[in-house]
Amino acid sequence: MNDYDIAVLTTGDELLSGELTDTNTGTIAEILALNGFRLRCSLSVPDQEKEISAALSYLVGHARFVIVTGGLGSTVDDLTARAAARTLGQPLVINEEALAMVRAWFAARNLQMEPNNERQALLPQQAQPLRNRQGTAPGFYLSHQGCELFFLPGVPKEMKPMFEQEVLPLLRRRVRDAVPLQQRIYKLFGLAEPRIDRMIPHHRLPPGVNVAFGLDYPLVLVKLRAGGREANDLLDQAEALLIRELGDHIMARDGETPEGMVGKMLTGAGLTLALAESCTGGLLAAMLTSQPGASAFLERGAVTYADSAKQDWLKVPPQILQQYGAVSEQCARAMAAGLRKASGTDLAVAITGIAGPDGATVDKPVGTVYIALAAENGVHAKRYQFSGDRNRVQRMSAFMSLEWIRRFALQHMERERDQHGSRL
Amino acid sequence: MNDYDIAVLTTGDELLSGELTDTNTGTIAEILALNGFRLRCSLSVPDQEKEISAALSYLVGHARFVIVTGGLGSTVDDLTARAAARTLGQPLVINEEALAMVRAWFAARNLQMEPNNERQALLPQQAQPLRNRQGTAPGFYLSHQGCELFFLPGVPKEMKPMFEQEVLPLLRRRVRDAVPLQQRIYKLFGLAEPRIDRMIPHHRLPPGVNVAFGLDYPLVLVKLRAGGREANDLLDQAEALLIRELGDHIMARDGETPEGMVGKMLTGAGLTLALAESCTGGLLAAMLTSQPGASAFLERGAVTYADSAKQDWLKVPPQILQQYGAVSEQCARAMAAGLRKASGTDLAVAITGIAGPDGATVDKPVGTVYIALAAENGVHAKRYQFSGDRNRVQRMSAFMSLEWIRRFALQHMERERDQHGSRL
Repeated sequence: MNDYDIAVLTTGDELLSGELTDTNTGTIAEILALNGFRLRCSLSVPDQEKEISAALSYLVGHARFVIVTGGLGSTVDDLTARAAARTLGQPLVINEEALAMVRAWFAARNLQMEPNNERQALLPQQAQPLRNRQGTAPGFYLSHQGCELFFLPGVPKEMKPMFEQEVLPLLRRRVRDAVPLQQRIYKLFGLAEPRIDRMIPHHRLPPGVNVAFGLDYPLVLVKLRAGGREANDLLDQAEALLIRELGDHIMARDGETPEGMVGKMLTGAGLTLALAESCTGGLLAAMLTSQPGASAFLERGAVTYADSAKQDWLKVPPQILQQYGAVSEQCARAMAAGLRKASGTDLAVAITGIAGPDGATVDKPVGTVYIALAAENGVHAKRYQFSGDRNRVQRMSAFMSLEWIRRFALQHMERERDQHGSRL
Repeated sequence: MNDYDIAVLTTGDELLSGELTDTNTGTIAEILALNGFRLRCSLSVPDQEKEISAALSYLVGHARFVIVTGGLGSTVDDLTARAAARTLGQPLVINEEALAMVRAWFAARNLQMEPNNERQALLPQQAQPLRNRQGTAPGFYLSHQGCELFFLPGVPKEMKPMFEQEVLPLLRRRVRDAVPLQQRIYKLFGLAEPRIDRMIPHHRLPPGVNVAFGLDYPLVLVKLRAGGREANDLLDQAEALLIRELGDHIMARDGETPEGMVGKMLTGAGLTLALAESCTGGLLAAMLTSQPGASAFLERGAVTYADSAKQDWLKVPPQILQQYGAVSEQCARAMAAGLRKASGTDLAVAITGIAGPDGATVDKPVGTVYIALAAENGVHAKRYQFSGDRNRVQRMSAFMSLEWIRRFALQHMERERDQHGSRL
């Protein structure tokens, strides 16, 4: 009998030196859980043949399925195939199918193949190559003494699709009684996890629905999970309860991002936006434009570090800068109003603050941030005091501004609906 | 002989369901590395006696030191002590010293001890308790057949000080010849990993220096490592060889970031910068301003999605937009030149391109990007064809622009040095 049904082995010096946190194990674990499987063991070893080999020997004897990630690249420290060959007593040979995959990858991109890349087709004799659509290194599959092993690259964006396309279907064929879990993720902004936990009506959730939490600062992810045939119904009921208590704070769901949702809302509402960023230095613009289709709503953005830029592009009156300083409600208001006038957009948002570590004063400690929004009905502004280091303050400021834009778009859409309704 | 010198075993269902990422392994790994030890294996299993026991059996036979975290609490799923007792063939008994520690913890806080907390003193017979100053659960130490095991709580803020106070001193006494490993990291831009690997003069590197690679797209990290008294000398020699072959491509080292280095270079050279970003949407500005001190060199940045913004803020002539389009060398040049004039900075950099997925034409497929740099001596521009999805194209464009700025600053500093030299 096996001690472990499914085990993961990750390889890489950086995983054991504290340099890099392994995300592959978590990714695999989550996909397995959603598909009704459970990971029973995860092991990490350095890029050393001795340790990879020791770990493989152990897992082959104690697990039913082993997923190995890392060490399939083209450099001297990529030793997984060699360790596998030695451990399983197979010679290492050029696998013609794998070689054809490597060649095809380079040919499709009009790239010159390096001699080193041929190493990536050196596999244990009985290995069956697994296609890698995102990179040069093919994976491979081996069966040995009742244990089935899958070898995947360590780069997360190559590993994940290969796991889903090449490993999961085989696991599903082998283990017929797996009960997939349905999961819905809600991305909440503006409340801390303990507060959210208290607001969730745990005792009223339908039995069989469980709640898990995740964090993607400053967002808190609430995950509802259920299995079986009625999973969707159960999740619908749980979702209705969750939305009643926390709906206001849900910025996005599942694969959506808050910035993507806000972009879609603006585009859908036909609203245009301009941004003036000081302490966030373009972070909010970069977030919004990381999503396709941003040109439909984003007219322009300004990163105005220098006072001259605030005066020149945003028409902030010099006397405001002199009297109140660049980090002030007055300046935030003037930035937003000036920007809206210059750009002719429906709304203009300005952020000015002290992200730190320098620039703090007694009245305005690090984390002091003013956000202003200018629209047809006037200019709104507010002072915030965010905590944490420079990058946290910048990220909080960008998300809070995004939240302002989201609420503006929501109100706008409600107004439109009301007006449209009253016309009928 | 042991396969692993030091191994870590973390226990907890949530580590294997994708809900929580294990940070204890990384914490231990980093402390070990700094102290000249190396973690050779990390293992995670669920809170199940069967799996904990299987993992302990394996590690006792294959490692010299084992650090176990988790499962020492007072609830039913805290099974580590029981699994250890069974695996090592010892009865589970109330350890009086441990019980006194638990009692003292509650007494010191004027808290009522729960009957469940007594369970935390139930340890394998030969266990020696380890004091936990941050929580109720004592840890414990066991020696078994040449393997020394340390059991610590899973809560990171309890685990870390216990590891430092209770485990590290014993490791230091046992392993007198612990050789702290020196590591130097070089962050390279513009070459793929196989190409870099071929350019490194592996056979000329001093013996004892080893090379490892990492990836932080689009940067390739080259890591040189050596131990022993001569580590620094060996690394100096290896570094000199590396710099001779690859020095041009090194954008940053160790804890530095390329954007931080470029910022420091600009500040040091007294150069000021303005940015005009179209397809990168503020990403470059956000990168540069994520570093403290950006206000010393960054005067302003523009995210000019709409043509009106290009005309208004960057003074791009309308006929250039009409004749050549916004994604053109002519437009990039006009953006950089106009921006430099508007801002009065030493250099101005403009980026315009098609990040995708929309906007491509026959002549200008997704990934077509123009970068222009305007300085006192004129405007330089170049067309690039980057591959990958929207975010890769944006990231490559930002890094390539950063590289232009870096090279400009380097040349500027060389010129200054030459002029200064000739004046002597």
